[in-house]
Amino acid sequence: MLTLLLFGSVATAFAQDVESQGISSILEIEQYGRAIHIMAMLLIGFGFLMVFVKKYGRSALTATFLLVSVSLPTYLAIKGLGIFEEKGEIEQFILAEFGAASLLIATGAVLGRIKMHQYLILGLLFIPFYMFNELVVIDDYFHFFGRVADTGGSIVIHAFGAIFGISAAIFLTTKEQREIPIHADATSDRFSLLGSMVLWVFWPSFCAALVPNEAIPATVVNVFLALCGSTLATYFASVKIRGKISPADIANAALAGGVAIGSTCDYANHVEAMIIGVIAGTISTIGFAILQEKQQKFQKIVDTCGVTNLHGIPGLFGGLVALVVVDGIDVGAQLKGILTTVIIAVIAGLFTGKIVSLFGQPKVIYDDEAEFETEVSE
Amino acid sequence: MLTLLLFGSVATAFAQDVESQGISSILEIEQYGRAIHIMAMLLIGFGFLMVFVKKYGRSALTATFLLVSVSLPTYLAIKGLGIFEEKGEIEQFILAEFGAASLLIATGAVLGRIKMHQYLILGLLFIPFYMFNELVVIDDYFHFFGRVADTGGSIVIHAFGAIFGISAAIFLTTKEQREIPIHADATSDRFSLLGSMVLWVFWPSFCAALVPNEAIPATVVNVFLALCGSTLATYFASVKIRGKISPADIANAALAGGVAIGSTCDYANHVEAMIIGVIAGTISTIGFAILQEKQQKFQKIVDTCGVTNLHGIPGLFGGLVALVVVDGIDVGAQLKGILTTVIIAVIAGLFTGKIVSLFGQPKVIYDDEAEFETEVSE
Amino acid sequence: MLTLLLFGSVATAFAQDVESQGISSILEIEQYGRAIHIMAMLLIGFGFLMVFVKKYGRSALTATFLLVSVSLPTYLAIKGLGIFEEKGEIEQFILAEFGAASLLIATGAVLGRIKMHQYLILGLLFIPFYMFNELVVIDDYFHFFGRVADTGGSIVIHAFGAIFGISAAIFLTTKEQREIPIHADATSDRFSLLGSMVLWVFWPSFCAALVPNEAIPATVVNVFLALCGSTLATYFASVKIRGKISPADIANAALAGGVAIGSTCDYANHVEAMIIGVIAGTISTIGFAILQEKQQKFQKIVDTCGVTNLHGIPGLFGGLVALVVVDGIDVGAQLKGILTTVIIAVIAGLFTGKIVSLFGQPKVIYDDEAEFETEVSE
Repeated sequence: MLTLLLFGSVATAFAQDVESQGISSILEIEQYGRAIHIMAMLLIGFGFLMVFVKKYGRSALTATFLLVSVSLPTYLAIKGLGIFEEKGEIEQFILAEFGAASLLIATGAVLGRIKMHQYLILGLLFIPFYMFNELVVIDDYFHFFGRVADTGGSIVIHAFGAIFGISAAIFLTTKEQREIPIHADATSDRFSLLGSMVLWVFWPSFCAALVPNEAIPATVVNVFLALCGSTLATYFASVKIRGKISPADIANAALAGGVAIGSTCDYANHVEAMIIGVIAGTISTIGFAILQEKQQKFQKIVDTCGVTNLHGIPGLFGGLVALVVVDGIDVGAQLKGILTTVIIAVIAGLFTGKIVSLFGQPKVIYDDEAEFETEVSE
Repeated sequence: MLTLLLFGSVATAFAQDVESQGISSILEIEQYGRAIHIMAMLLIGFGFLMVFVKKYGRSALTATFLLVSVSLPTYLAIKGLGIFEEKGEIEQFILAEFGAASLLIATGAVLGRIKMHQYLILGLLFIPFYMFNELVVIDDYFHFFGRVADTGGSIVIHAFGAIFGISAAIFLTTKEQREIPIHADATSDRFSLLGSMVLWVFWPSFCAALVPNEAIPATVVNVFLALCGSTLATYFASVKIRGKISPADIANAALAGGVAIGSTCDYANHVEAMIIGVIAGTISTIGFAILQEKQQKFQKIVDTCGVTNLHGIPGLFGGLVALVVVDGIDVGAQLKGILTTVIIAVIAGLFTGKIVSLFGQPKVIYDDEAEFETEVSE
Repeated sequence: MLTLLLFGSVATAFAQDVESQGISSILEIEQYGRAIHIMAMLLIGFGFLMVFVKKYGRSALTATFLLVSVSLPTYLAIKGLGIFEEKGEIEQFILAEFGAASLLIATGAVLGRIKMHQYLILGLLFIPFYMFNELVVIDDYFHFFGRVADTGGSIVIHAFGAIFGISAAIFLTTKEQREIPIHADATSDRFSLLGSMVLWVFWPSFCAALVPNEAIPATVVNVFLALCGSTLATYFASVKIRGKISPADIANAALAGGVAIGSTCDYANHVEAMIIGVIAGTISTIGFAILQEKQQKFQKIVDTCGVTNLHGIPGLFGGLVALVVVDGIDVGAQLKGILTTVIIAVIAGLFTGKIVSLFGQPKVIYDDEAEFETEVSE
């Protein structure tokens, strides 16, 4: 009798086990779906967003290909050294994709002013710095912080990348280059809006990539609402400030809600998410329309894609907003996390910019012809 | 002994419970995958399909951004008022996306002839009307209908949107505007075909978005087969009628199978699905190649994107085909549902068109320059 | 008491059953997610990759639409004849998509030199031959082979399609046509890179489409690493050989890692995957930059898209590499499988090329104007 009973409960336990294995495997496959979405953002999204530079489209897309291809294996190889906590294979891969995203953001600041092989050097140097910041701020390797709220990477992905990029730009912008205008045209704008839309559509998968299952639906809706908010705000701010709509504002600032909701995507309620989006879109558009020119003069740089205004300021705003939105947040940890990220990004960016600048400088900038076999189009 | 047994069965029940919770959470995440696919259709699909207007691409994409961003929160906010049945968060969001799809269809009829802020007004007015029709026809709030077969929205999404749009167009087309041709070129056509392909690829997720799990595989294959049918039929009809292939026919009518299979996507067998697609593609192409000119003269409108022929007629056809395909269909309910949708769409469209027309009129139509900061391209 | 116990164990079994049903249904829906990814590769990926031909973009996209639309129902209809093993609905559909992929590869060799209706004839003839090869080599219908390792189709999809295409090209390239250059421009290149990126992003879903659940994470990472490898190698080889970067190399050879990893995607470890990618990218670029001209002279053909170098050689390489990578591989079966595929592809390609050539020949090649109602763009 007891045997039978034992058998019964063993059977139950076994059923549970089989199922829970099945479910954990299913969960990893769903995670892989999100990894694919993020890859679409990296290549097609970031890649085409940068195609707004009229004569530099093929270069921007090739650079995107190379940056992704060099950063993912580099990240995974360093993770394999054993300093880091073991994680699921897809989770690891998604973390590598986050690094690639941050790298692409950084690159946006210097786009068109370095040669193709310099993008590779930039990528190789960026990843270890990025991982060091991740280790310190998110994994809290030195037990220095406590928990920093940054699920979708407002701080460690977006702000880090942007600040790294504009720091590197200091060594990667000459005086003459600062006088050269960056041209777009109707076709490059349409390609850029394609990139922007790809980022918009898949952004929830970026933020929810590593969120526990139960929290995914609310996170997804939050991210979409933040994006709706920033898109609407961008339109109004763009018309208000400029009198006309700027295609660059729409393609870029419309995404600021996604940047800013990152830190709080799984904590905010829907109304908060929408408000965060509206504020982010507004400050991002103000950045593009008013501040960018002043900043570039002040820093003596060109920020080709305006990453300061899409990723830098909205990223920091997103990190700070967590102080208000997240119940029981560790205020000290959050502030220390932001500050540390800024400091590491500045130092690493300056260092990397200097090194990359030693490898040459293109004669013609913002132009494919410099390095591509291109046919003269009639 | 009994205790042990009870414990055993409690354990079993608990196992079931844990698992079924796990599974229901997994199902909602799979639903979210479909929600992302639909979002790709809304922004990239509908957006780029409308880029065929050569000089109006940036405006079409910006309008798409704004229409999606204003309609989703509006829909969700109205749902939050408590008149409606409570549903899962992602399910609710998908229903909001359906509303946005219908709005984008309606907008296709007046594209290029209203100013950017008028798209927002159009969106704000459209959503409540759309939700009223949904409440009456699908949710059967007044217990007036019985069950209407319209899983993928042939009637309440496609036909409603198209009829709303061409009704609104009556107040949004001046006599002079009817003489102005709409130009496409090789690049705008290629962008438009991109939008078309994005819609084609993700259409099964649109139709299967809220279908029960077990029915998803058959639904998905049905939708793809209907699209294959309409694509082939469009090619043959286009060549037969025009002597040459029209890029606009291919980009648009090829999708008519997706529109028409909507009402019966989870009922039809594969052969029926393919036949529905072939018929839909044929009548849609006849619409674009022959009827459109007559209709526009008769109604004294311009239907910029030809939504009558892609969404209107194929949508009504899809709704009627259910009478033949769905076993034990409630014929009265289906016919009343179609009729009610048509009536509400006409009245709402006329009203909305009138209101929107009070907010001005662009000086130059089908042209970005009217409202955009654009560089003159060399 | 026994009744109770029995009831208990029945309950347990029932719970297991319900769950395992739930899980199998979930697995099929996850498979459908991969089917959608593959469809994005077919239409948007292959379609836009072929848009590099400057004046033939609308034709290339329309041909893609038609080839997909004719091949999927044809494949499914033939499968319905009952010769083949019964499989799940989505699995069947994915196998049909594989056939469509192979067809699109074959078409790449003759793109621009046949009329639109000839693409349809090509598709109708291709599918039965493809299925015969699949039946013989993969399903081992005649018990002639044993197990051939080709999960992601390096041999039966990529090499088969490419060899079929260049064989057909022998009858579909005239002497005069061999003198006509194929032009690209900045916009056609950007569209082509879009297609390339779509293929890159979704490639893991192609290879992992029918892989058992547990093996999916490792397979996905393998495919991405192989693609990273070939992308990096392509850049270095392109610059090394040509002195400048060729946009066509980047758009094409960067994908060779995906082609070559096909046979071993679920067997290789990550380092092997990366190495396979690097070698594939290198030989593919050598093919495009050096061998293509010689091959075309020797075979007296034009291979419009260079499918020999993207799919042919890397596909065969992938099939052979399995001999080294897969533990306990049946060497004889693998070699017989490759050889049989080559022979069937050559014969079928020659036959089909001859038949298709009987249906005429366009007056102007590589040009939409031949068959499209196109507006003269200013």
